[in-house]
Amino acid sequence: MEKLRGNLIFGQSGGPTSVFNASAAGVFTAGLEEACIPHVFGAAHGIAGLLKEEIYDMGAEDKEELLLLKTTPSSALGSCRYKMKDYLEDDREYRKLLEILKKYDIRYFFYNGGNDSMDTCNKISRFLRSANYECRVVGIPKTIDNDLCGTDHCPGFASAAKYVATTTMEIYEDARVYDQGMICVVEVMGRHAGWLTAATALAKAKGSGPDLIYLPEIEFDLSRFLADVKEVYMQKSRVLIAVSEGVRTKEGSYIPELIRQVSKDSFGHKQLGGSAQVLADFLRDEIGCKVRGIELSLMQRAASHLASAVDVEEAFGAGRHAVEAAVRGESDVMIGIQRLASKPYRSTFITVPLAESANHEKLLDRSWINAEGNGVTEAYLDYAFPLIDQKSEPPCEDGLPRYARLKKRKAKF
Amino acid sequence: MEKLRGNLIFGQSGGPTSVFNASAAGVFTAGLEEACIPHVFGAAHGIAGLLKEEIYDMGAEDKEELLLLKTTPSSALGSCRYKMKDYLEDDREYRKLLEILKKYDIRYFFYNGGNDSMDTCNKISRFLRSANYECRVVGIPKTIDNDLCGTDHCPGFASAAKYVATTTMEIYEDARVYDQGMICVVEVMGRHAGWLTAATALAKAKGSGPDLIYLPEIEFDLSRFLADVKEVYMQKSRVLIAVSEGVRTKEGSYIPELIRQVSKDSFGHKQLGGSAQVLADFLRDEIGCKVRGIELSLMQRAASHLASAVDVEEAFGAGRHAVEAAVRGESDVMIGIQRLASKPYRSTFITVPLAESANHEKLLDRSWINAEGNGVTEAYLDYAFPLIDQKSEPPCEDGLPRYARLKKRKAKF
Repeated sequence: MEKLRGNLIFGQSGGPTSVFNASAAGVFTAGLEEACIPHVFGAAHGIAGLLKEEIYDMGAEDKEELLLLKTTPSSALGSCRYKMKDYLEDDREYRKLLEILKKYDIRYFFYNGGNDSMDTCNKISRFLRSANYECRVVGIPKTIDNDLCGTDHCPGFASAAKYVATTTMEIYEDARVYDQGMICVVEVMGRHAGWLTAATALAKAKGSGPDLIYLPEIEFDLSRFLADVKEVYMQKSRVLIAVSEGVRTKEGSYIPELIRQVSKDSFGHKQLGGSAQVLADFLRDEIGCKVRGIELSLMQRAASHLASAVDVEEAFGAGRHAVEAAVRGESDVMIGIQRLASKPYRSTFITVPLAESANHEKLLDRSWINAEGNGVTEAYLDYAFPLIDQKSEPPCEDGLPRYARLKKRKAKF
Repeated sequence: MEKLRGNLIFGQSGGPTSVFNASAAGVFTAGLEEACIPHVFGAAHGIAGLLKEEIYDMGAEDKEELLLLKTTPSSALGSCRYKMKDYLEDDREYRKLLEILKKYDIRYFFYNGGNDSMDTCNKISRFLRSANYECRVVGIPKTIDNDLCGTDHCPGFASAAKYVATTTMEIYEDARVYDQGMICVVEVMGRHAGWLTAATALAKAKGSGPDLIYLPEIEFDLSRFLADVKEVYMQKSRVLIAVSEGVRTKEGSYIPELIRQVSKDSFGHKQLGGSAQVLADFLRDEIGCKVRGIELSLMQRAASHLASAVDVEEAFGAGRHAVEAAVRGESDVMIGIQRLASKPYRSTFITVPLAESANHEKLLDRSWINAEGNGVTEAYLDYAFPLIDQKSEPPCEDGLPRYARLKKRKAKF
């Protein structure tokens, strides 16, 4: 098959990760090497910016800076949370997009994101096909939530897991130094899937982790929770609890809402703070000891200083592989990671139909969660440990990370 | 002078740091090498545990595990917040202590902590002298607050500063990815001194730091603060703010209290959350954009995975030096760090009278804070950068830190 000649565009979508830009580096470096791709573009703020023709010329960047993207956290181009309608309902945005693709002679379209982004990718791919515009569309997975189907795990997850596990160990050591009772609640990201919160079990496997872990896969029951905590507290006087931000009751209430409902405070006002803080306050009221609520907040998805080397290389490789697959002729696919072995860890890249990942969520299997629903089993540890084993070594300057400095020159076409 | 023969005890006091245990490792290893010191003991929970005769036999520990304390965060023996009365007012605890020191033939007393602990140390030293009990008393400085007099900086500070600066860079990169206004407030520890909050300026020097920094040394004025934030927001639509937990108004109100006073919410209820969250909520109400409050919480003082190599070695060295100084005949002193040069960084240990550090606080000099009172000057950067330049490399196992595992065998005597 003759190679398709045309320009390339790449966009970032959804919440950032510490290796989001590593995939960008993979796409840019591979794209710039391909003779059939004269120009490599980056979309500012994903599809939202592309529709406004906010396009950067990545060929104008220094090669060294593009490679520094491998260890630069967050989203160098800017990201978006933008869900396109189905073009069968309303194709105005799609026609606008087609105009822009034509204007810039874009024949390679890469989109890096989670479930929603794979859906966007899939819709664009189908529209372009229906419009008879030849363009290879490839999705690159990314999410700390690790909830995409069609891949063993998602770029972004391993680094976040390494950060969460390491930080949990540090918190565990700190939250028991005084000769008094203490309960600490750590809140981890993950709206629907507990993969990342479960990474606190890695800390536990090393002897410095949570006594109890609450995941979104298991319905949250406040009296059961309180009984769990009291039991550990009676035994040890110190309790470390990990809770996913996505934990909900049978009725669908998130924790801050639930605590508000049962709160003794009769003003009925809006409670501030996330799950960790409100649970900690609840336990202080119920048990009467010192408490602390800790939110791992943006740090868990941005801690490139503690990124997993496997994750950095896979995120980068997924970007490069996306370009290679598209040039080879593949389209309407997502890059997936297939695990070949765990000890030592080996993986390879595959391509899976976009439709497989679009809008589906891969949750933790019930068999990987303990019977009590407050911890995980050995199977999870076997799955996750190989992903966090090696540490990335980001370049530093004066003891602080040296991030990529992009010119972000507007593409002229 | 003939060497004083007798046993050694070491205790940890106050809030932990990521190199607290490195000083313990220094004292234990040096103590175990001294022929004039037959037994090396550790006090559980500092002076509080010692008064209850909770004493560990450190000679029973494996040497390798004691060395792993260099990179194990928190307080391996347990810490305390226990302020002894003056013995001239009430000497019962001092007489109890003397009994225990005699029983265990302790002639070397080492106490590791901040201002209060140096005061404890000083009182004990004076009491023992008045009781004609020969015992060398040496304080070892420790605090992420960096507010001890008599030393260029305190063990614990540099590692916390490295963590705070690195994490601030990561937060900066993350908190600006979407195409919309965003204000992020990061809260850093430090009740009275702004040394650690000022470390966010190191991130700024690298291009990824806060626009505004509020320190406890400067009276906080809410309308001035709001004007500062609005000015930056008008220019850039993204504002990153670092604020010390110790920031107070002229009247002495901490931020959560202050915001409660001016809050539009008429219920008069207790606001939850720390300064970051309440300031973020305040700014959302005033400016009407997306906000996020982030507390660096226990992580900033426990992040041994990102410790400064200078800090680890100085904390360890301070412990060893304390033993050497005491054996040499010094007493009633604190170990200080004297900076010899900044480029490249070199330091040496000195001893300073305990009374110099006891209960005094070293604040950031006004000349190191900018005229507007919302940032620091070059002098601070020159002071702090050399301390965070090199990273410690803690031993890992399966990708997670391998902490010291102590037997904590009760001393029998």
